[in-house]
Amino acid sequence: MTAIQQRCSALSNSPVFMNIIISLIIINAILIGLETYPQIANTYGHWLMVIDAILLWIFTVEIVIRLIGSTSIKAFFKDPWSVFDFVIVLSGHLLVGSYVTVLRILRVLRVLRAISIIPSLRKMVNALLLTIPSMGTILLLLGLFFYVYGVIGTLLYHSIAPEYFGTLHQSLLTLFQVITLESWASGVMRPILAEDPSSWWYFVTFILIGAFVIVNLFVGVVVNNVEEANREESPSPTDIKLAELQKELAEIKQLLRKQKD
Amino acid sequence: MTAIQQRCSALSNSPVFMNIIISLIIINAILIGLETYPQIANTYGHWLMVIDAILLWIFTVEIVIRLIGSTSIKAFFKDPWSVFDFVIVLSGHLLVGSYVTVLRILRVLRVLRAISIIPSLRKMVNALLLTIPSMGTILLLLGLFFYVYGVIGTLLYHSIAPEYFGTLHQSLLTLFQVITLESWASGVMRPILAEDPSSWWYFVTFILIGAFVIVNLFVGVVVNNVEEANREESPSPTDIKLAELQKELAEIKQLLRKQKD
Amino acid sequence: MTAIQQRCSALSNSPVFMNIIISLIIINAILIGLETYPQIANTYGHWLMVIDAILLWIFTVEIVIRLIGSTSIKAFFKDPWSVFDFVIVLSGHLLVGSYVTVLRILRVLRVLRAISIIPSLRKMVNALLLTIPSMGTILLLLGLFFYVYGVIGTLLYHSIAPEYFGTLHQSLLTLFQVITLESWASGVMRPILAEDPSSWWYFVTFILIGAFVIVNLFVGVVVNNVEEANREESPSPTDIKLAELQKELAEIKQLLRKQKD
Amino acid sequence: MTAIQQRCSALSNSPVFMNIIISLIIINAILIGLETYPQIANTYGHWLMVIDAILLWIFTVEIVIRLIGSTSIKAFFKDPWSVFDFVIVLSGHLLVGSYVTVLRILRVLRVLRAISIIPSLRKMVNALLLTIPSMGTILLLLGLFFYVYGVIGTLLYHSIAPEYFGTLHQSLLTLFQVITLESWASGVMRPILAEDPSSWWYFVTFILIGAFVIVNLFVGVVVNNVEEANREESPSPTDIKLAELQKELAEIKQLLRKQKD
Repeated sequence: MTAIQQRCSALSNSPVFMNIIISLIIINAILIGLETYPQIANTYGHWLMVIDAILLWIFTVEIVIRLIGSTSIKAFFKDPWSVFDFVIVLSGHLLVGSYVTVLRILRVLRVLRAISIIPSLRKMVNALLLTIPSMGTILLLLGLFFYVYGVIGTLLYHSIAPEYFGTLHQSLLTLFQVITLESWASGVMRPILAEDPSSWWYFVTFILIGAFVIVNLFVGVVVNNVEEANREESPSPTDIKLAELQKELAEIKQLLRKQKD
Repeated sequence: MTAIQQRCSALSNSPVFMNIIISLIIINAILIGLETYPQIANTYGHWLMVIDAILLWIFTVEIVIRLIGSTSIKAFFKDPWSVFDFVIVLSGHLLVGSYVTVLRILRVLRVLRAISIIPSLRKMVNALLLTIPSMGTILLLLGLFFYVYGVIGTLLYHSIAPEYFGTLHQSLLTLFQVITLESWASGVMRPILAEDPSSWWYFVTFILIGAFVIVNLFVGVVVNNVEEANREESPSPTDIKLAELQKELAEIKQLLRKQKD
Repeated sequence: MTAIQQRCSALSNSPVFMNIIISLIIINAILIGLETYPQIANTYGHWLMVIDAILLWIFTVEIVIRLIGSTSIKAFFKDPWSVFDFVIVLSGHLLVGSYVTVLRILRVLRVLRAISIIPSLRKMVNALLLTIPSMGTILLLLGLFFYVYGVIGTLLYHSIAPEYFGTLHQSLLTLFQVITLESWASGVMRPILAEDPSSWWYFVTFILIGAFVIVNLFVGVVVNNVEEANREESPSPTDIKLAELQKELAEIKQLLRKQKD
Repeated sequence: MTAIQQRCSALSNSPVFMNIIISLIIINAILIGLETYPQIANTYGHWLMVIDAILLWIFTVEIVIRLIGSTSIKAFFKDPWSVFDFVIVLSGHLLVGSYVTVLRILRVLRVLRAISIIPSLRKMVNALLLTIPSMGTILLLLGLFFYVYGVIGTLLYHSIAPEYFGTLHQSLLTLFQVITLESWASGVMRPILAEDPSSWWYFVTFILIGAFVIVNLFVGVVVNNVEEANREESPSPTDIKLAELQKELAEIKQLLRKQKD
């Protein structure tokens, strides 16, 4: 039994195995892309489904090999990326009978397995996810700010512009549009301004405060990353010189001690 | 009397008290959100108002406890966040009879008390507010620049595009729209360009100068924050090594002094 | 004669004099703003013109005082800000008879004299202008890139979209609009795409290359300013410690020298 | 033979030669610009073509001189900028008979030779191109993210909004439009939202994730450049002081050694 485990472990860690899986994911991605073109889907649809089923089974075998190859089942499910792979592949089997669109979206998500397979991508995504907590407080502030403006917007403009501020969740979506600066004036503000000439303060203050907070959010991320980059840097030339100085001093001390004796 | 003061002080500083207030603010926020949906407001409107009145009184008691718990009334009103809390809650009582929308907006602002209660948020907002003075001069420059372009725009285009440049304050609003780059060409410039073919310089120079100044404003904030972050950093490895060198030198000096004797 | 010169020099450097001029510029700015409102211009127009004429003469006297107060006429005209003030005020006299709009725009530009008078603003603008040469090469690159895309756009789309790509200068203006991302797809690309399905590469590559170059331009400015800020910083704690070390070493050396004797 | 080679080498490296070529490229650029105006093209079209042919031959001679002047043909074609110049000029001869627009676009590209001729521009472009690999992984991630959202968008909205999500490549173009935030709400999302009220998550998550990744991409470039700038800096004042300290220590050591003897 352990012989099989060792073989599976060796296999799942071998670069050849990884490259084959990556290639199959790319093939899978291309097939999914081709399937969206009606003329191709109509002519070769059956073949595409057969290949897709084969790929799903290959991925299942891959997961099983990695599961057997891991030190324990617990260890396998401790790595969130393994869980991600497992769920994506398993759901491909379970949801076979369900609604076509759901199944197809699931199949696309299989492309995201490239992230869990390619080490550099996985490292990058992990690094990106790690920057989220450092922005926690300012995101909370942004949320609070959105909520307050959302309620005020609904109270003031739900009858003037029902398509933008009709309900609280519509207002929040509109405020998201406004913060991206898309048609905030031509589409949203100016029609409201025509009926309520004092409404400009609502939009201008929202953009000014929002932009100000977001700029600082952005700056926070930048500052954070610059610092991290500096910390990770190899010893600076200054530190190397200091180490040399320390050596010199040690020698001098020894010279003095010898003199004393 | 001091016994009550001490109790109030202890209570207002206890984390349990703070967590209860935060929870009540969140409940208040959710209720205010629900109230914006007409079907909910119509069915449960009365209950929502009763709960809101109860919450207002709880918040009033909270403020009174904090006021009693503070070393003096002066000390309480010295903290701008306490003043903020006091005004928000007091106005809830004073404006009871006034126009419904004003009252409701006031109730939403009560959600902002989360900032004054949650320490990390308060710290963050204080930090954000502190970055404003450092941008003072460049904001003044931006204001000057807006004013001059606003007057010129009104002089040149008030008859061509009265909805954008009819009056000075309309021009300033339009320029704010242009600086956010929203529909500046398709909505604002091109119709004017059709009547005055030389008007492109007005918009292009405004965007170029404005973007240039704003980029530098932004850079100023970034540079400022990076510096501050560096300053706040714990002693760098370089400084630790230098301290070690200083110790070594002191030892050598002592050795030399002993030799001399 | 020199007595008058000294008095003028003392006067033009006194803070009271500066504050009066700043106040007059602000009053001038407000009057110019009020004049853009037709109802005010119709009722008080005459008074506004009288006050404006008085202000112009006060500013003229100010310039004359500063001219007399300077060490030589050459020295006065060496400072570009003095030349700026001189030209702005002089043109107010020379162009009196000309077209009203020209005169009014000139009067607005007088507000910009606030920059030359207020030291912090002048310093800021000088600093902003100094960052331009450091971006020289990349601006040249951006210009080249605009020109090439402008010519190609005119060649390819002048018949499909004459309002956007009819002539080379129209194309350059359209490309400026595209680089600000304003209606680049909905307004400019999609109508062209409907007639020439391969035109997407023109816009997508222009935005990608343009954004890439501009981001690097921006980064260049940021990097430049961060470095400059670091250079201007007061001696770092590291350098202070190093200076202390140097002192210590000097003492040790003296001790050793004494021993030798 | 070598005498000619040496002469060509000297000529191709002389600043006069370079300045003449730059001037001719500028003249070429202006002529190409003028040609896009129909009235000029109709009146002086023949002359412009003659001058263009002459310029093409001069550039051909230039390339030949540089080819002869280089140490070997291999060395000439090793420099990608030489290959770029060679291809641009050669294609001017080869494609003479082909479709007019192709020829004209080719002629515009000749303007880009300014980059290969002007050293500062060449250095800048090389530097810009060098920053691309450092963004490799994050661009791959962005590509993956676009592909997955593109397929999902096509699956979900190809019947609701065929002009935006009809086929996979249309979806990718639309997503590019959405990531630039151009009309993403007013043009793309709101019409879809009217038919599928749950479609907002597709756009909001795409913008949030996309902006988040792009911000980090941008930050990566900034951090990279700041580090590089720091590395390239001339020795810092700290390092200069350290070098002085090292000298002092060496002297002290010598003093001690002498004492010992």
